[in-house]
Amino acid sequence: MSVEKITSLFKEELSVVNLGLEGFAEDLSGLGVPVIQVDWRPPAGGDARLAGLFDRIEANTGLDVAAANQEAAGRILKGKPTVVGIGVAEKDIPGMHKKLILHAGPPVTWERMCGSMRGAVIGGLIYEGLAGDEKEAEKLAASGEIIFEPCHHHSTVGPMAGIVTASMPVWILENTTYGNRAYATLNEGLGKVLRYGANSPEVIEKLKWMETDLAPILSKTIALHGPIDMKNLIAQVLQMGDEGHNRNRAGTSLLIRELAPYIVMLDEPKEKLSRVLKFMHENDHFFLNLTMPSGKCTVDAAADIEGSSVIVCMARNGTDFGIRVSGLGDQWFIAPATAVDGLYLPGYGPEDAGLDIGDSVITETVGIGGFAMAAAPAIVKFVGGTPADAINFTRRMYEITVTENDTYQIPTMDFRGTPTGIDVLKIVETGILPAINTGIAHKDPGVGMVGAGLVKPPTECFTDAFEAFAERYGVE
Amino acid sequence: MSVEKITSLFKEELSVVNLGLEGFAEDLSGLGVPVIQVDWRPPAGGDARLAGLFDRIEANTGLDVAAANQEAAGRILKGKPTVVGIGVAEKDIPGMHKKLILHAGPPVTWERMCGSMRGAVIGGLIYEGLAGDEKEAEKLAASGEIIFEPCHHHSTVGPMAGIVTASMPVWILENTTYGNRAYATLNEGLGKVLRYGANSPEVIEKLKWMETDLAPILSKTIALHGPIDMKNLIAQVLQMGDEGHNRNRAGTSLLIRELAPYIVMLDEPKEKLSRVLKFMHENDHFFLNLTMPSGKCTVDAAADIEGSSVIVCMARNGTDFGIRVSGLGDQWFIAPATAVDGLYLPGYGPEDAGLDIGDSVITETVGIGGFAMAAAPAIVKFVGGTPADAINFTRRMYEITVTENDTYQIPTMDFRGTPTGIDVLKIVETGILPAINTGIAHKDPGVGMVGAGLVKPPTECFTDAFEAFAERYGVE
Repeated sequence: MSVEKITSLFKEELSVVNLGLEGFAEDLSGLGVPVIQVDWRPPAGGDARLAGLFDRIEANTGLDVAAANQEAAGRILKGKPTVVGIGVAEKDIPGMHKKLILHAGPPVTWERMCGSMRGAVIGGLIYEGLAGDEKEAEKLAASGEIIFEPCHHHSTVGPMAGIVTASMPVWILENTTYGNRAYATLNEGLGKVLRYGANSPEVIEKLKWMETDLAPILSKTIALHGPIDMKNLIAQVLQMGDEGHNRNRAGTSLLIRELAPYIVMLDEPKEKLSRVLKFMHENDHFFLNLTMPSGKCTVDAAADIEGSSVIVCMARNGTDFGIRVSGLGDQWFIAPATAVDGLYLPGYGPEDAGLDIGDSVITETVGIGGFAMAAAPAIVKFVGGTPADAINFTRRMYEITVTENDTYQIPTMDFRGTPTGIDVLKIVETGILPAINTGIAHKDPGVGMVGAGLVKPPTECFTDAFEAFAERYGVE
Repeated sequence: MSVEKITSLFKEELSVVNLGLEGFAEDLSGLGVPVIQVDWRPPAGGDARLAGLFDRIEANTGLDVAAANQEAAGRILKGKPTVVGIGVAEKDIPGMHKKLILHAGPPVTWERMCGSMRGAVIGGLIYEGLAGDEKEAEKLAASGEIIFEPCHHHSTVGPMAGIVTASMPVWILENTTYGNRAYATLNEGLGKVLRYGANSPEVIEKLKWMETDLAPILSKTIALHGPIDMKNLIAQVLQMGDEGHNRNRAGTSLLIRELAPYIVMLDEPKEKLSRVLKFMHENDHFFLNLTMPSGKCTVDAAADIEGSSVIVCMARNGTDFGIRVSGLGDQWFIAPATAVDGLYLPGYGPEDAGLDIGDSVITETVGIGGFAMAAAPAIVKFVGGTPADAINFTRRMYEITVTENDTYQIPTMDFRGTPTGIDVLKIVETGILPAINTGIAHKDPGVGMVGAGLVKPPTECFTDAFEAFAERYGVE
C-alpha cells in the first residue's frame, strides 16, 4: 500500500477487524474506533505435535468424526428433560447408600478436597447424624469409612461443592426421549448454605426443613400438577433474560406461577404452604437445580458414541477441572482447577476465593449458561463484565460447537439457537475455551459464598482429551 | 471527489451513515453494506410557517422551555407508583356513578364510537344490569341517558376500548412521591374480552367472577402483603424481556410470586384461591393493567407546568388519537386514529382491523412500552418486525425525549435509561413520531382481538399542540 493510500485510509471513518494480537484492537478501541477482535491463532496454537495428531485422525478413512458429532449433537437437541417428581437420594439415586457421599466434579479424595467441599462434607455428616459435631465429622471423613464418589457417576449433578447424602430430597428428571434419568438436590438459596461450604446449625436446620416440609409439599404438588416440561421452560427463560446458570430469576418465577395453583390445593397447614412459596420467591437460584439435571439427562444421551469428540461432561471439584468425551467412554481428563475472575460480596476479595467448583457447568455443556449469556445481558451485574462481553461470549462459542439449538434461542441474536455440542477437536484447533460463569465459594470450610464471576477452564484437560482421542481413533 | 478517489473508496469495506432519503440506505443494505439510517429532515419538515413558530417561542426571553421540561421530566423520574389496593369504580374513582361510562382516549360520542368500543359499551350496560340484551343496550347507549367520558378525565386508564362501569373492581395506584392516585380495571385476559369489544354471555360471566371472586381475593391479599412497589417491579421486568405494554410475561410472573405466599394464607375455599392463581398464570397481560395506572399516576404529576412542552397524555378511542401537553392544561389535541401495522391471529387480516385504540399508550408516554422495546426483543413475535427494529425504535425515541430514566434501564444498551418525557417541540422539529406497539381489535362490535402490531400516531395532533404552544407562549 502506498503512503498516500495509507494516509487517505486513516482520514476516513475506520471500522477494523483485528486478527490475533489483542493489543492493536485495544489501542484502536481506546481511540473510539469500532473494532471487532477475532481471536485468531495458528491451528492448535502452532503446536506441530498437536497438528500431527489432527493428521492422524484425518488419516483414519474409516472414521467419520463429523457424522458421529452430528449424532451426538442431534441427541442433545432431541432430548426432552422433564421433571417427574421429587424423591430421596438413598431411595432414588442408583447405588446411593448411607456411607456414600456424592460430590461435584471429577473424583477427589478427602485429603485433596478444597475447603468449601470439606465444609460441605462436614455439614453433610452432621445432617445425616453420622457425626455430632465438626471435629467428629472431620475424623469420620478422614477415616476411610465414608466413600466419596462424583455425582456424575450416579446420574446426579450438584452445584458448587455438590454434596449429596442419603437422606437428602432430590429432583427426579427424565429425558423422555431416551428414558434416562438425572437427579439433583433442591436449591438452598444464597449466603450461608451447604453447597458453598457452610455447615453451621442454621444451615443444617434449613436442610432438615427442606427434607420434612419443602420436598414433601413440592412432591405432592408435582403429583397433582403432572410432569413439568423443562425444555419448554428453558426455552422461555432465554427470552426473559436468564441463561440458566447464574441468572435464574425468570425460571424461578415461571416455576412458581406454574406450581402455585396446585400448592394451594394441598391439605396442609397454610403456614407451611406459604413458607414453601416464600422460600422459592426469596431464592432466584431455585430453578438452577432444575436446569442442571435437565442438562445432565440431556447430554447423558449423547455419551458413548463411537468416534464423537463432543464433550458430554464438564465438572469441577474445587481442586480439579474434569471433562469426559462421548467417544472416549467414562474416562475423565483432568487438570488443576483455575481461579474465577469475578465480583465479590461486601467484605470479601480474591484472597478469600476458592478455585472453580461445581457441576453447574453442565449447563454450559448442554449449550446454555455461559454459552447463552447473550440472552441474559443483566447477568453482568452479578458476574462482572459488560452486556457486549455477554454477547461476545456466546458468539465465540459457535466456533467450538457442532450445532445450534433448535429450541433454545437468543432474541437479541435474531433468535439464533444457542451454540450446542462442544467439540474438543475444535477447542484444540481454535484455542478457544468454553465460556463459563459461576459462583465463588470461600477457600476455607464453613464460610460460604463470597462472589460470582467468569472462569477460563484449564487448557490441559482439553488437549489431554484430544490426545487420547487421537490415540484411540487416529492412524499413522 | 476525483473519480479515482471514488473508485478507491468503493474498493474498501464500506460503513455508511445515510442522511435523509431511505432509498440509498435500503439499496446499500441489500448489498450487505452496514448502514446506519439517520432520519434527517429539514427542521419542521421544511415548513416555513412552523419554523416561524419556533422563532416566536424562542423570542420569548421570559420563557425557559428547557427548564420547564426538566421540571416535568424530573417529576416523572421522581414518581413512585405503588399499588395500594383494589376498590370498586363507583366508590373509588372520583366522580364515578351508575350512569357514567368511562372509555379510552379523548372524548367521543356514542355516534362516533368505533365498533369495538360500542361492543364494549353494550357489554358494560348488560354487565351493570342496565340493559337485558344487546338491542336494549344499544338503545340505552344512544338515548342520551348514559354519559360517556374519557377515563383520563377521572385519573383512570383503560386498555383498548377502556370501558369502565360503576360496579367494576379497580386497581388503586398511588404515586407516593406526590400523593396522587390512578385507577384501572383488572385485566380480563386475551381472546373474547370486553376491552376488545366482545360482549357475549361468557364475557359478562367472567367479569362477574372478577367482581365477586378475583378482586376480593386479591384485595385481601394486598391488605396482607402491604403496598406493592411498582417502580421496582417495572425496573426488574425491563431486565427480563418485558417492555410493559404488549409483553408482560415477566411482570405477571413477578406479581404472582410476590402475592402467592399471601394468597395461600387467606381463609377462603382453596378452589377459589387456586382459580385466582390459575387465572393470573394463564394471562400474561395481567400486569398490563398495573403498568398502565403506574404510568398514569406518574405522568399526572408532570401536568400543568407553565412553559413545559412535555406530553403528559396520549390516548386513542378507535376514532381519534389525542394528546395533552403539560404547559397547555386540559386541552386535547386530536386527529383521526390511524391503522396498526401488525401480525394477525389465524383467520383474521387487515380488513378486519379497527383503528388504533386504548389508553395503554400511557406506557409510551411514561417512557416504557414502545419506548423500551430494546429491552424486549422477543416482543417482535407478537407485534412483528425484527429484534433490530426493536432496538432502533428505542434508539430513535431519545431524539424526541427530554431525559433518560434513572431507574428503568435497558440491559442490551449498556443499562441506558429509557427515553423519557416526550417533547412535542422535538417531535415537530425532527418529524419523528412516538413509537407505539399495541393490540388490534376487530372493527365490528362483539368480536374481540384480531392481532397486535406497531402504529404511527397521526402527525396533526402534534403539530396542532405545537401551534397552540406557540400561540400560548410565543411572542412576535
